This record gives sequence, structure tokens and C-alpha cells, in this order.
Amino acid sequence: MANPIDRSIINISVDCVIFGFDENEIDLKVLLIERGEEPFFGQMALPGDLVNIDENIDESAKRVLRELTGLDDIFLEQLFTFGNITRHPLGRVVTVTYYALIKPSDFDLLPSGFATMAEWRSISEIRELAFDHFKILSTALTRLKGKIRYQPIGFNLLPEKFTLTQLQSLYETILDTDFDKRNFRKKILSMDMLIPLNEKQKGVAHRAARLYKFDMERYDKLQTLGFNFAL
Amino acid sequence: MANPIDRSIINISVDCVIFGFDENEIDLKVLLIERGEEPFFGQMALPGDLVNIDENIDESAKRVLRELTGLDDIFLEQLFTFGNITRHPLGRVVTVTYYALIKPSDFDLLPSGFATMAEWRSISEIRELAFDHFKILSTALTRLKGKIRYQPIGFNLLPEKFTLTQLQSLYETILDTDFDKRNFRKKILSMDMLIPLNEKQKGVAHRAARLYKFDMERYDKLQTLGFNFAL
Repeated sequence: MANPIDRSIINISVDCVIFGFDENEIDLKVLLIERGEEPFFGQMALPGDLVNIDENIDESAKRVLRELTGLDDIFLEQLFTFGNITRHPLGRVVTVTYYALIKPSDFDLLPSGFATMAEWRSISEIRELAFDHFKILSTALTRLKGKIRYQPIGFNLLPEKFTLTQLQSLYETILDTDFDKRNFRKKILSMDMLIPLNEKQKGVAHRAARLYKFDMERYDKLQTLGFNFAL
Repeated sequence: MANPIDRSIINISVDCVIFGFDENEIDLKVLLIERGEEPFFGQMALPGDLVNIDENIDESAKRVLRELTGLDDIFLEQLFTFGNITRHPLGRVVTVTYYALIKPSDFDLLPSGFATMAEWRSISEIRELAFDHFKILSTALTRLKGKIRYQPIGFNLLPEKFTLTQLQSLYETILDTDFDKRNFRKKILSMDMLIPLNEKQKGVAHRAARLYKFDMERYDKLQTLGFNFAL
């Protein structure tokens, strides 16, 4: 059961927006739970709960995510704090939100606590969520799209060796847009973050494409310095 | 007097990092208060206080800033939420922080409440602050520097008509770096956000420079879309 809301004070909670990308899927996904208690009983929501008085908020977000969905050891980045007085029907709750982007197939889901279900849903199919969670999801999506304009992503989401088509598909899925193949390749290769391998795809019906891997030293440097990914 | 901290709950506060840039100054400044009560009596701090149960956090930040420093009608952007259990000596306080960049000479300071003084201090001279406020200031500075890499700034900080030297000085002060004059001009002009005027500086000893003003339509568009200001 979730901690009870105290109506006489400002309560503080955490909510997590966990985005998922799998290379064989064409949709960006987000991890949702089904709520097994009021308010919003039976509705889909982001994993979230009240912060305990003896835990740091970052640790709280990790604990709540683990307790409700089974996901552990996820690097969570703080997103935004939502604190409007009307956002929770049972009292005043300010929520600190976090987000991450992971590869769903790397993790097992294990719903527990007041989560009667935990599952990946395609972003494009979500119309409403409990509380102001739809708004939180929208904010997270905007942040994610903004972030990949100036920081490289892909490591951990793609196999160690991947084709440029797979990398393009990753960017296209997250940014929800199509890129010109030639321009995308030219731009990506000009960043020097990829190492071309003397290997090609195996077991494909079409002409096998060259495989690449991330140059981790350069990739880390670009993550720190940022780049201007003006595709 | 500040609201008292309740040791039995997680308290929530707001803190404001107000950066100041005046065209005749070579330093970026920040607005600090001197605390007239414990803890950190007599020490310099960011303006901040507890959130009331009946106010939105954004409104709370505006109210607290106004009450402590007299600054009103400032557009505050949310920065980050700091929630470590050890950050406040009198109990558990999670603080939602905000930041802004304004022109100090446009505003009068009027310290009040537990602020015995409110004044602009050069960033480079600040060595320590009450609570974890030095860390909050560092986070805000990093955010500000990151932001002006992809969003134009300057409107409201410069006179309506300004020289390219004044604009360069603004960027140099905030980013704490020097730019090559030729490259800076080329880059800034290529963005089409400036309108060159058929007017020159008046009353200067050196050769009078051309004046420019912001193309507000284009400026607003760049603020929304972002640009890649890779100087």
C-alpha cells in the first residue's frame, strides 16, 4: 500500500518516466503501472509514491521504481518538480520527477505493492493517465528530444555492433521524424563517434550492411561537451 | 521571520538564483541576502523560504523573492530540486530552486523579513554561502552557460540599440571566456537575429560603431527552436 497522504501538510512524492527503446520496435515506449488502489483505481500511471523522511530524493525514486516495477540499477535523471495545489485529489503533493531511457529487453518487470500490473506501452497510444501524469510524460518527452539534439545517445540501446540503419532508426523513433539517409550518415560519421568494423551483418536477405561500434572515449567526451546535432 | 521547520515531516522550500548583468560591468552578478536569523545568522544566502500549503511552488518562489528582496515580476525558470537529508541543519527540507537573468539597474532592492540586506555580488568573489547554496549557485551557472549555447539571450539585458562589442561582452561575461571578434561577429550576424541600423554610437572617443537592435520576431523564433551557438 502507498503511504497515506497527510492533508495538513505538503507531501512530497517522486514519479519516474522510464522510456524504452528496442531496436526491433518502431515505437518509443514508456513504463506504466496499473494502480490497485484509490485514487485512480484501475487506471494507468507512472510509477511513483511518497518520499520517506529518511531517504534522499534520488534514492527514493530508485526505491519506488524498484518496489513497484522490479526495475533496479537504472540511472535516473531529474526532470522537473510539479507542485500545483490541485494536482492530487487527496491533498497537497509536490512531486519530483525523474526520467531514463533504457532497453526493455534487458530487464524483467515484477509489479508489486499497489501496482497490479507493470508494462511497456507505446507513447503514441497513450491518451490519458492518472493524476497529471500525462503532462509529466509530455514534459519528459520534450526533454528527451531536446537532449538528444546536443548529446549522443545509443550506447546501451543498440547491440555492441550495429548498422547505420539501426542507429538512424533509433534517432527517428525518439524524435518521431524521418531523416534523409545520406545526410544522416554524413552528419553522424562527421562526429567521429563511430568505429567502422571490417564486418558485415549476417543472415539478412538484403545486401549486408557494414557494422559499427561506438568509440567510447569519444562518445563519453561528446556526452560531456555536447554536440550540435542539427540534422 | 521565516516559517519554522517541522522536524517530524519533510518540509518544502524554494530558493532563487537571480543572475544580474549590467553592460558597464565586467562581472556576472548574483543576488544574495544576509540572513538575520538562525541557522547561518549573519551569513550570505540565496533568497529562499518555506512554501505555504495553499500556494503553487512557482508562485511561492515569486512571493519569497518579493518578500525578501523587493524584486517583483521576474520570470523565474525552474532549475533543480535538492533533497539530500543532510542539507538543512534544523530538519528535513527539500528545496525547489529557480533562476533568472536580469539587468540589476532596472530594479530597486528592498530587503525585508529575515533578510537584513539584499545585494548584488560578483560571482567570481563568492567563496561560500549558507546551507548548500554555493552548490545551487554552481548548478545554476552551469545551466545558464548551457542554455545560452542553444538559446539567444540579450534582449532586456542590453539597451534597445547596442553595438556588437556590447553583445560580445555580454556573451563573454556569462560564459567567462574570450571570443575572437571576427568569428563572433560572423556567427552572430549569420543567425539573422539582429537588425543593423543606420545609426552609430554617439559621444565616444574612439571610432563610433554601428548600432543594432534585436529582430524580435526572429529572436522569439530562435528562443523556441533553439540554435547551435558553437562559437
